[in-house]
Amino acid sequence: MTSGGLTQRLVEQHFATRDGELVLGGVSVRELAERFGTPLYVYDATVMRAQLRRLREAIPARVEVFFSVKANPNIDVLRVFVGEGTGLEIASASEYLRARAAGCAPDRIVFAGPGKGQDELARVIADGIGEIHLESDEEIALAAALAETANRRVRVALRINPRAAGGAMQMGGQSTPFGFDEERLEEVAHLVLRQPHLDLVGLHLYGGTQMLRAEAVVAQWEATVELGRALARLLGRPLESLDFGGGLGIPYFVKDAELDLAAVRRGLAERLDDAIADPALAGARLLVEPGRFLVGPAGVYVTGVRSVKTSRGKTFVVTDGGMHHHLAASGNLGQVIKKDYPLVHGARALAPPAMTAVVTGPLCTPLDTVGRAVPLPETRVGDLVCILQSGAYGLSASPVGFLSHPMPAEILVGDGEPRVVRARGTFEAPIVGLPG
Amino acid sequence: MTSGGLTQRLVEQHFATRDGELVLGGVSVRELAERFGTPLYVYDATVMRAQLRRLREAIPARVEVFFSVKANPNIDVLRVFVGEGTGLEIASASEYLRARAAGCAPDRIVFAGPGKGQDELARVIADGIGEIHLESDEEIALAAALAETANRRVRVALRINPRAAGGAMQMGGQSTPFGFDEERLEEVAHLVLRQPHLDLVGLHLYGGTQMLRAEAVVAQWEATVELGRALARLLGRPLESLDFGGGLGIPYFVKDAELDLAAVRRGLAERLDDAIADPALAGARLLVEPGRFLVGPAGVYVTGVRSVKTSRGKTFVVTDGGMHHHLAASGNLGQVIKKDYPLVHGARALAPPAMTAVVTGPLCTPLDTVGRAVPLPETRVGDLVCILQSGAYGLSASPVGFLSHPMPAEILVGDGEPRVVRARGTFEAPIVGLPG
Repeated sequence: MTSGGLTQRLVEQHFATRDGELVLGGVSVRELAERFGTPLYVYDATVMRAQLRRLREAIPARVEVFFSVKANPNIDVLRVFVGEGTGLEIASASEYLRARAAGCAPDRIVFAGPGKGQDELARVIADGIGEIHLESDEEIALAAALAETANRRVRVALRINPRAAGGAMQMGGQSTPFGFDEERLEEVAHLVLRQPHLDLVGLHLYGGTQMLRAEAVVAQWEATVELGRALARLLGRPLESLDFGGGLGIPYFVKDAELDLAAVRRGLAERLDDAIADPALAGARLLVEPGRFLVGPAGVYVTGVRSVKTSRGKTFVVTDGGMHHHLAASGNLGQVIKKDYPLVHGARALAPPAMTAVVTGPLCTPLDTVGRAVPLPETRVGDLVCILQSGAYGLSASPVGFLSHPMPAEILVGDGEPRVVRARGTFEAPIVGLPG
Repeated sequence: MTSGGLTQRLVEQHFATRDGELVLGGVSVRELAERFGTPLYVYDATVMRAQLRRLREAIPARVEVFFSVKANPNIDVLRVFVGEGTGLEIASASEYLRARAAGCAPDRIVFAGPGKGQDELARVIADGIGEIHLESDEEIALAAALAETANRRVRVALRINPRAAGGAMQMGGQSTPFGFDEERLEEVAHLVLRQPHLDLVGLHLYGGTQMLRAEAVVAQWEATVELGRALARLLGRPLESLDFGGGLGIPYFVKDAELDLAAVRRGLAERLDDAIADPALAGARLLVEPGRFLVGPAGVYVTGVRSVKTSRGKTFVVTDGGMHHHLAASGNLGQVIKKDYPLVHGARALAPPAMTAVVTGPLCTPLDTVGRAVPLPETRVGDLVCILQSGAYGLSASPVGFLSHPMPAEILVGDGEPRVVRARGTFEAPIVGLPG
């Protein structure tokens, strides 16, 4: 199994090559590696903006995009999206502070998560956050008490875990710790309505993740609209807010098809345009909160080769970067079957393969494998091996302290001169806190 | 499937209860949680010392224990072991600095890893590290060049990936990026001997991990001795050093049997005592480098319950701690089949179960599940849920930045008064670097 077709497609769609070298935001990875050292995360603002544009073209003009901070919490990455007019969806108080540091106004921030802390809720309520998405009975009581203490009315929405909604819905009908089961919608709405300091503005659907089928996206949005109308009927007034959730996927593996945005556009135009004109929703702020889709393709993890060795017939390319910086690529972030991320040689990005290698990191553990059967051109010590589709759930979702290696730098390109948006760690202080 | 039998056994073997409450190093978890807040890692020095004593009783008196820093790099944890006379096995330059900060002399430190960096090697060579375990042709050349530059003779050993060695050996015969295949022993020894600044002192076996069968341990040690004698014959002189590797396991799941140390002792006495008296090995420093075995049982991850909710017939206990602090417990650190770690209720540690719950963390992702079918007594908001066997590959092997929650504090008990050995992070600076 090779990932040749996918890697070529991704390089051509999002980046460029120059004399064979992979070029990110106009700069070759070799130059970036020489200037900033490896291992290295590179994020291309051009790609982020292009993904945002593609998404906006596919969805109704009224729907606002809120970038999901958990996909990539780097403050300069957030700044790129905020600069393009997005809001931000957060899942912790520290993400809230990052959102604020990136210039996002409190009322452009919404907060979801199944176990929000009292201190977290107090912090964002004091600031006047845009919306809190309530997910449990305990949280209703807690938010109400904190709102009363702060002497504020707090805008809240119900996060709803839908009933199974036909074949196309990727999720629904499951038991989850997220939000309230749809079956409890009426009961929960009344619980919230009894709280004088909570202002029930709408609803947020707990939906799919990594959706690559247009029908799944359209079905999720339809289910959200139906639930939104049901809530409006219960309330006897129009909604002020409706959140379709996120879950737009990107291809990681050879057999992954890309999400067909034209089909999403057709499906939404056909099935949603009338529904959102309904008086129950006509005045509501409509939100979609993608993370992976917007930033995933923009990120490349660049590693330097330290050893090329053969063991009993297999070739191993040992690099200076691995699972401690990129858990998902090692197959240890929820994958059931480990499959290879798209890997390319930095100097010969589109060259035909001359070898098949196991690509590993430097960690002293067999878990530190980032490619099991990677087609590569002839590869030598000092060469660069780059992992594509690494902008989302990369560094921030990785066990950065595992074996105590320094944090890699994070570099932003495509937004003026390449610049460091997180400083590299050192042997003495391998883990770097904020900012970045 | 319940983990009742295992949890009870672990609580009784390593800890205690008082009025039903779990007690760690003489202090109840409730008191620790009140004093230091949750989520919280607690390490009990009494358990570390007991595990070290049990191991030393099972191995020949000549064999020295080197604690493997990667299992738990907290400097105060290292101090406990160093204070008991162990050396340290490191896998990065930052681990080297931690070892030194814990009071370990350079010559009591050995360094293994398949992709050591030039800067890392230069750093430890300048300091006069005890041994470097060479793992590739490139590393031989690099170490030789750096030793020459530093004008030092550097003690090196060959890390060897053994041929399959009979049924009991857990590893061997595989393709790996670690060390040199045994088939190359003679060739590689000569490569090193040609380097005037490298002093070839011995050999290190790349062996098993998480071994729970005594025969596997004995077979690994036997294979190491055989390889050591072969190297001594090649060199025409006795070895100065022989490293049996680590890999001693601990039980995590209901069906795991505990490693039978009495059987290890009998097996080693029978099969090893004569062999290590052989002139080729009689003067050698013999090392074993366990990590998990020594520190795993000593650690408990303590979480506080934020919500208890039912979704379509399943009960979810949502806590304030999760996969971002304990990736292994979530089943995402190399596990193929996700199984539950031993979880206990803090206030009623040995009470019979009254419910079966899915235990999750606070993260806004379905990955954040730390128990799938956990038998618990009646559990309410504010209760403590504790994950046992969490001292090794816990916090340092986890994606601590995932969703930007503050780092938990780490507390050492059983070594005088309970004390903070890593400060809790804050919303503003969630990730804390050294020390800790």
